[in-house]
Amino acid sequence: MTNIHTLKNGVRVVADPMPELKTAALGVWVKTGSVDETPEEHGIAHLLEHMAFKGTKTRSALAIAEEIEGVGGYLNAATSHQRTGYYARVLKDDLVLGADILADILANPLFDEVELAKEHEVVVQEIGEAADTPDDVVFEKLTEAAWGAHPLGRPILGTPDSVRAQSPASLRKFMSRCYRPEEMIIAASGAVDEDALLKTAETLFSDFTANGAGPARTAPQFQGGLLHDPRKIEQTHLAVAFPGVASGHEDYFATRLYADVLGGGMSSRLFQKVREERGLAYSVYAFADGFEQSGLLGAYVNAEARHIPEAARLIREEMAATAEAMTNEEIARGKALLRSSLMLGLESPANRIEAASGQLFTFGRLMDADEILERIDAITVADMQRCAKRALEGPCAISIVGPSKADAVARVFDTA
Amino acid sequence: MTNIHTLKNGVRVVADPMPELKTAALGVWVKTGSVDETPEEHGIAHLLEHMAFKGTKTRSALAIAEEIEGVGGYLNAATSHQRTGYYARVLKDDLVLGADILADILANPLFDEVELAKEHEVVVQEIGEAADTPDDVVFEKLTEAAWGAHPLGRPILGTPDSVRAQSPASLRKFMSRCYRPEEMIIAASGAVDEDALLKTAETLFSDFTANGAGPARTAPQFQGGLLHDPRKIEQTHLAVAFPGVASGHEDYFATRLYADVLGGGMSSRLFQKVREERGLAYSVYAFADGFEQSGLLGAYVNAEARHIPEAARLIREEMAATAEAMTNEEIARGKALLRSSLMLGLESPANRIEAASGQLFTFGRLMDADEILERIDAITVADMQRCAKRALEGPCAISIVGPSKADAVARVFDTA
Repeated sequence: MTNIHTLKNGVRVVADPMPELKTAALGVWVKTGSVDETPEEHGIAHLLEHMAFKGTKTRSALAIAEEIEGVGGYLNAATSHQRTGYYARVLKDDLVLGADILADILANPLFDEVELAKEHEVVVQEIGEAADTPDDVVFEKLTEAAWGAHPLGRPILGTPDSVRAQSPASLRKFMSRCYRPEEMIIAASGAVDEDALLKTAETLFSDFTANGAGPARTAPQFQGGLLHDPRKIEQTHLAVAFPGVASGHEDYFATRLYADVLGGGMSSRLFQKVREERGLAYSVYAFADGFEQSGLLGAYVNAEARHIPEAARLIREEMAATAEAMTNEEIARGKALLRSSLMLGLESPANRIEAASGQLFTFGRLMDADEILERIDAITVADMQRCAKRALEGPCAISIVGPSKADAVARVFDTA
Repeated sequence: MTNIHTLKNGVRVVADPMPELKTAALGVWVKTGSVDETPEEHGIAHLLEHMAFKGTKTRSALAIAEEIEGVGGYLNAATSHQRTGYYARVLKDDLVLGADILADILANPLFDEVELAKEHEVVVQEIGEAADTPDDVVFEKLTEAAWGAHPLGRPILGTPDSVRAQSPASLRKFMSRCYRPEEMIIAASGAVDEDALLKTAETLFSDFTANGAGPARTAPQFQGGLLHDPRKIEQTHLAVAFPGVASGHEDYFATRLYADVLGGGMSSRLFQKVREERGLAYSVYAFADGFEQSGLLGAYVNAEARHIPEAARLIREEMAATAEAMTNEEIARGKALLRSSLMLGLESPANRIEAASGQLFTFGRLMDADEILERIDAITVADMQRCAKRALEGPCAISIVGPSKADAVARVFDTA
């Protein structure tokens, strides 16, 4: 039985015991990320996530690492456009220790100037690593093509200059504006003692406060257009997207199901047409990404430059053809895959807390498996077609990394 | 209770029920891979793994995909130097269907000429994708630097030419030589009906036979040396390795524990010295890889070219310093991390079958958690020092991808 408690300051605590497990997954999520940055703060949400591990009033960075690893635990964190998550994986007896460390690094970070100067350089190395990973770059550029100057279109990591410009004061300012207790969730799944978790959360998180009116948030406007990074590599990466729907939109599941039929598995249209029938590519798929106020419906392929125009044509054709007509078998397979990915996810504590925090942020409540299964079952072919056609009428964002005749691709998607 | 059954022809069947689960992980492993290839067959083990999905006597490639995805299941496969694995993830009621498909694609593959010609091109695209991934390339080149012309030193994927040279006949020849029933394991974990699994395995795998004396296997000799791919990218990737021990060697756990203390977690020497104290890199770690008859003990770092000589020096220094002296706290943390990664792995059915097949291939029997925990507990600092010092006396293999003064790195490791 999964329970939600709300602390006085609005922090929500999710306790999700799985009695058969001997380990627990624990996390703290904040509904903030790179979209809440001002232009001067570019990269600060991610840098702050790094700096949380660099020392508190009572623990040095080394002490944090030694304490969690001394009990065989792991810490991790991730920053996305609209969420920041801090995770711990621990054995049963160490849940309170894990919660204590996560609370300490968020409530009492030092943001020491010397540590910050070193961490600037670590993040600059991370930026360089991402720049050498074409399938990271192609999606960074896709969001830029989609949303232009809106912060949702900016790279999460920032630039070397923007990262180096951040100070202890700018970190504190961002944190007090964007880490708001009513937008924070603590969730634990697995070998979880609910009373101990709640008591720990009350002791450590009840004093968490924020200042001011919170981040100014504007809805992104989908612009579209083509961005091409013509670097000389073996393969060309192409990502295209049309306007999708937000993750809380009533059409979100129908849109995702359309994307699955289009390019979700080995039996999907794109896998069959692009890879199996023509041998043009190893990696090809479709996706439906939902954000708070917006979404993307698109596809990705990675192939030799000479194959890209034909792969693009097949993607565009199948997007339209799938929106026109799907077989009952395709829809049944898509639903079966969605259902089973839900069932598989339910067996993993790390997956469960990620899903729980996502549902609380998106819907303000938890959805149990039966409710999600019912929603999936209720999707009709008419729903899927309506979602797909609406998306395909919108502008198109195209991102290409690698050698390519970009004009030929633009013509395929009518954005030339 | 995990049970092992052996079919008449030597195929082993592992049934590992986890009664609380509603899904099952299922796999078939063959103890063969790229090391069993002749020079003319380079890439054939991996190509064969692809071709297994391209049609059987009774199922087309599309039918295979539609049948498994029709019940929401997933198929996957992976080829390494010495193992090939075929996987299915299914809901409880579909275990027999999953086993039936895996058996069919291995027992009755068509190796159709037209499908093969297309799959050549798919694999060529996969090779291009790997070539654009510097952290894949650096480890491919590391094994080449370590083992030279021995097949363990060759890339698993092959080259475009060597892949395109493979025919239905060469695939059949490789398969009948290297897919030997006594070196095959079927394992299922999770929502598993043991009787049904065994009956399915008996029906479908009992006729599996191989021809001839099997693959000729020679032990690789560690050579060492430096390979440098100076491609112009943002970051330089450096991997170094000394001779380690095989995965079945009595010193394997002690070697791995040394590698963990050296560079396993956030509290490890390399993370602290290279990242935390100096801010030189985002990614740095040590590793101990065990193969059938050999191993690697090494470290990896990825940083701007100007940081590489200093990072290399710190790695070499800490390798030696850690071999000379470790604190009790470091060893205790390393053991705690090894223990907890074991406990976490036990909760995942996909992880359990991977571990079970690995233990059967390596030790000829399953090791329960208690036995592994006892082995970890019994490791002494003297064991770890002996293993590390023996490795560091050997030749050194160095692989660099990206701009670098390779001479400076070679001097650090005395291989100039």
